[in-house]
Amino acid sequence: MRLGLVQFAPRIGEVRFNADSMLEAANAAAEYGATLAVFPELSLIGYPPMDLLRDETLRETCRIALDEMVNRVKIPSLIGAPSWEDGKVYNAAYWVSDQGWSIVGRKVLLPNYDVFDESRYFQSGDQCRVLEHNGKKFLLSICEDLWARDADVKYPTDPVQLALDNAGSSVDFILNIAASPYSIQGIPRRTHVLQSTATRCGIPVVYVNQVGARADLIFDGGTSVAHPNKAVQELCPKFEQGFALWDANTHQHLKTFVCSSFGKDLTMSKDLLNPTQGSNVIILGDHFDANEITKALCLGIRDYLAMTGGKKVVIGLSGGVDSAVVLCLAVMALGSENVTALLMPSGYSSERSVADGVALCRLHEVTYQILPIEEGFRAVMGTLHAQWKTPPTGLTEENIQPRMRALFLMAYSNQYGAMWLNSSNKSEAAVGYSTLYGDMGGGLSVIGDLYKTQVYALANSWNSDREWVPSSILEAAPSAELRPGQLDSDSLPPYPMLDAILMDRVEGGLDEEGLMLKGHDPDLVRRVMDMMKRCEFKRHQMPPVLRVSSRSFGRGWRRSLV
Amino acid sequence: MRLGLVQFAPRIGEVRFNADSMLEAANAAAEYGATLAVFPELSLIGYPPMDLLRDETLRETCRIALDEMVNRVKIPSLIGAPSWEDGKVYNAAYWVSDQGWSIVGRKVLLPNYDVFDESRYFQSGDQCRVLEHNGKKFLLSICEDLWARDADVKYPTDPVQLALDNAGSSVDFILNIAASPYSIQGIPRRTHVLQSTATRCGIPVVYVNQVGARADLIFDGGTSVAHPNKAVQELCPKFEQGFALWDANTHQHLKTFVCSSFGKDLTMSKDLLNPTQGSNVIILGDHFDANEITKALCLGIRDYLAMTGGKKVVIGLSGGVDSAVVLCLAVMALGSENVTALLMPSGYSSERSVADGVALCRLHEVTYQILPIEEGFRAVMGTLHAQWKTPPTGLTEENIQPRMRALFLMAYSNQYGAMWLNSSNKSEAAVGYSTLYGDMGGGLSVIGDLYKTQVYALANSWNSDREWVPSSILEAAPSAELRPGQLDSDSLPPYPMLDAILMDRVEGGLDEEGLMLKGHDPDLVRRVMDMMKRCEFKRHQMPPVLRVSSRSFGRGWRRSLV
Repeated sequence: MRLGLVQFAPRIGEVRFNADSMLEAANAAAEYGATLAVFPELSLIGYPPMDLLRDETLRETCRIALDEMVNRVKIPSLIGAPSWEDGKVYNAAYWVSDQGWSIVGRKVLLPNYDVFDESRYFQSGDQCRVLEHNGKKFLLSICEDLWARDADVKYPTDPVQLALDNAGSSVDFILNIAASPYSIQGIPRRTHVLQSTATRCGIPVVYVNQVGARADLIFDGGTSVAHPNKAVQELCPKFEQGFALWDANTHQHLKTFVCSSFGKDLTMSKDLLNPTQGSNVIILGDHFDANEITKALCLGIRDYLAMTGGKKVVIGLSGGVDSAVVLCLAVMALGSENVTALLMPSGYSSERSVADGVALCRLHEVTYQILPIEEGFRAVMGTLHAQWKTPPTGLTEENIQPRMRALFLMAYSNQYGAMWLNSSNKSEAAVGYSTLYGDMGGGLSVIGDLYKTQVYALANSWNSDREWVPSSILEAAPSAELRPGQLDSDSLPPYPMLDAILMDRVEGGLDEEGLMLKGHDPDLVRRVMDMMKRCEFKRHQMPPVLRVSSRSFGRGWRRSLV
Repeated sequence: MRLGLVQFAPRIGEVRFNADSMLEAANAAAEYGATLAVFPELSLIGYPPMDLLRDETLRETCRIALDEMVNRVKIPSLIGAPSWEDGKVYNAAYWVSDQGWSIVGRKVLLPNYDVFDESRYFQSGDQCRVLEHNGKKFLLSICEDLWARDADVKYPTDPVQLALDNAGSSVDFILNIAASPYSIQGIPRRTHVLQSTATRCGIPVVYVNQVGARADLIFDGGTSVAHPNKAVQELCPKFEQGFALWDANTHQHLKTFVCSSFGKDLTMSKDLLNPTQGSNVIILGDHFDANEITKALCLGIRDYLAMTGGKKVVIGLSGGVDSAVVLCLAVMALGSENVTALLMPSGYSSERSVADGVALCRLHEVTYQILPIEEGFRAVMGTLHAQWKTPPTGLTEENIQPRMRALFLMAYSNQYGAMWLNSSNKSEAAVGYSTLYGDMGGGLSVIGDLYKTQVYALANSWNSDREWVPSSILEAAPSAELRPGQLDSDSLPPYPMLDAILMDRVEGGLDEEGLMLKGHDPDLVRRVMDMMKRCEFKRHQMPPVLRVSSRSFGRGWRRSLV
């Protein structure tokens, strides 16, 4: 038996498109000798489907798509799709062949933490099942089923171990089909789970995951095989669509193809896929693979643009590191020709920041426009002054500036059909050091899940290759430039201290007492916790944030506004 | 046994405040003869607690608060709080008396639809339990436990009926403690559940619910008793905090007190609480009680301001019905002295809209400022024109206007510490007929869960009493006034047709095929569905919306952005 392991990027709710793509993939894999095509969890409807599952006609749409696959598929295929049975909905696996289709698995463990809400929509299956095909027996598990011992929550049973115990020693390998989003912390955890399961069970674990970004969630793929007592072997390059051929008899990886569309541009992957090293157990912030994060964010940008029908983006360039990094990512993701930068200096902008912004654009051959906000700013100040009999002061005056810039960015977006990419980082978003309807705006937050120190780390890592972010940008003290001589450090603790607390709070899940017990300065902890609570309302109105950590602001962070 | 049924407004996460308030309430009820105080579901931590439940120290904080109550409480009290047992968390009920505290109930049915996510956080209890106190037996149920036959989902068992069957015929009444948010459709459904349960089981059902608004969710209270074959009797006025004394021996309602704080301003309620009529089974849109909706929205405004520490609001007054209605609600909720209106005419604003805005402010004695956007608008247009060599056109030019207004509103908000109340309605939010960072901004969306036709209905209903919204506002054709002669009807179907489709889609849950089957025009359905999908990204950045329907945009509406 030769498996075609398809690292597929389904579109949410586009059942027809997904079914057609899977047909193309299965039939392409068949041409290269595959006798079974394997697709990720919920590959027929995309992930996360959310309230789409409540739409009455989804069931019928899926049935029609499955029937169509039966008519055209050349080899049996395992696909992920919901199953509707006796008024219940399961997160299921279907066996689809020219003989018909049937339900062969139902997800047992349903995650309900972080970005996951599966119990909201699905019933738990009873057990994992062992399937037999071409004389080979394999245990079919769906994503979380493999995580009984390693998830963020305690599960009462381990459905994989249970099914193996019941099946005796005859199972050849474990198959896991997944829709598991990327996170910095998640990759080493996943590697650990695959490897430890293979070692414990004494048989290979074959893992097939979704790829592609879906708004905030980025799926890396990471289709791979774990052999007992060996390093995990990646079979498909991360963040790319494609399929790998894996021989279930010899346990050999044969070939890998990558493509943007299975029917169009199949290319054999020349990457020699290096085995990932060891079974890292993650310590927060330790696993910072700049290359991986860069790929993840580029995919996030590219797919969000593709899914929303756009090609071009616009970025407000301040001369600071955040917008510079976003510009670089946009250039990597979309090409310089699709990126426009707006430089919008005010009277408080330093010469350095404007000059550095221009230099950055020239370096990356990005078109830029200089739109001074002075005239608009003065007009607004004048109207308010005339009515109020006193000029706007302090925070009022400061906030008018980023809001005027937002107005220009949205005007550009409207006029030229470009999506405004937000440049806020996670540190700012956490403590509310940002202006609602100003720098917090945009269609997509690119680095909103990276702390300020991580944004620097990313830029520095790129620069070790060639100059991506000019050093004068990296060396300048962070400033919002909303009043003369303003520095971030006037209002915030030094970023390394701030980020350490935030990371322990957000990703680490520690509360006030926990943070103090861990040794953070009590006064600082109270101050940071207070800042975080007071700006929950701002985060409520943030654009979707590309998620690269185990806990990003957005659907994985659910705190009361009051 | 005399019950003090406490319609309590807990604050989310403020365990100490909640415990102190409950102590005051229990001891006040004791003074008036109560022998058992009953508090709503999760009254110790507030609802919905969300990720607060993940904070490590919450358990200890709750334990300390419970111990403190034991020391000071004069009568036994039933309170709602999480219980942590063997690594699991339950939505539980505690019996607290001077003898100590113990867990006496665990919620069995956990809702996971609409705004509810209880399986994310809680384990299901095994069963409802029958408690005995002062010779009376009562079955304790927690919110959804009473809804086994009537919820939006099918439950496998009815824990109330099961517990009654097990207890034989000796149970005197059923007690339900709830945290059930208000909705137009929910009130008659709740009445039906209380009444049908009392009638089917042949004993009274006593219902105690949270009150107070918590960001988007408004809790009406509605503490009441249902007797078999009789109309439901309300014991506390809706939307007010207080407690009712109910005699479990005679089944008589004795007295009701209302108060803003149990320790401070207890007043006997003079309202003669009229029994609610019949067991209305709801048909969407049929149950439109303007008085009730007005009270709900006023509570929503008042509590959100109180919880975020503010007193004053600012509203952008366009001369249209939406902002007029929001202004009236703000006046009702906060008093004229706390409301400021900004009139921000452009060259496209009609004389009528400005004059009507001024008239409205005078009618309600609301301070207003006229801040023409012309100067700022021209400055922005000029800067863009100079850079682009061509003036901004079409949608770009249109959108600059609401964004300039948003800039003024936020400047006012910053300078004078007033919260900007958003005036978007649900029809606009549904189809994206609104400008992001423009009229979609604000701290709280007041009427974002009312369709345009419902906004008119509300205004007309007020006007039948005295003039609240001048008739020229109600009679003017809806217009965004962003270009000469623009009317909503240029871009949208007539509101009655649009709203009928939206209501069947959003509250009714019909999908495209379902809408067509129901008889809506297929082309119009496709157009509306397409508009709804394309603006999911705008709704993602909306302020919290006061929820008054069974399905509001926000936490109850979860659709993919792509």
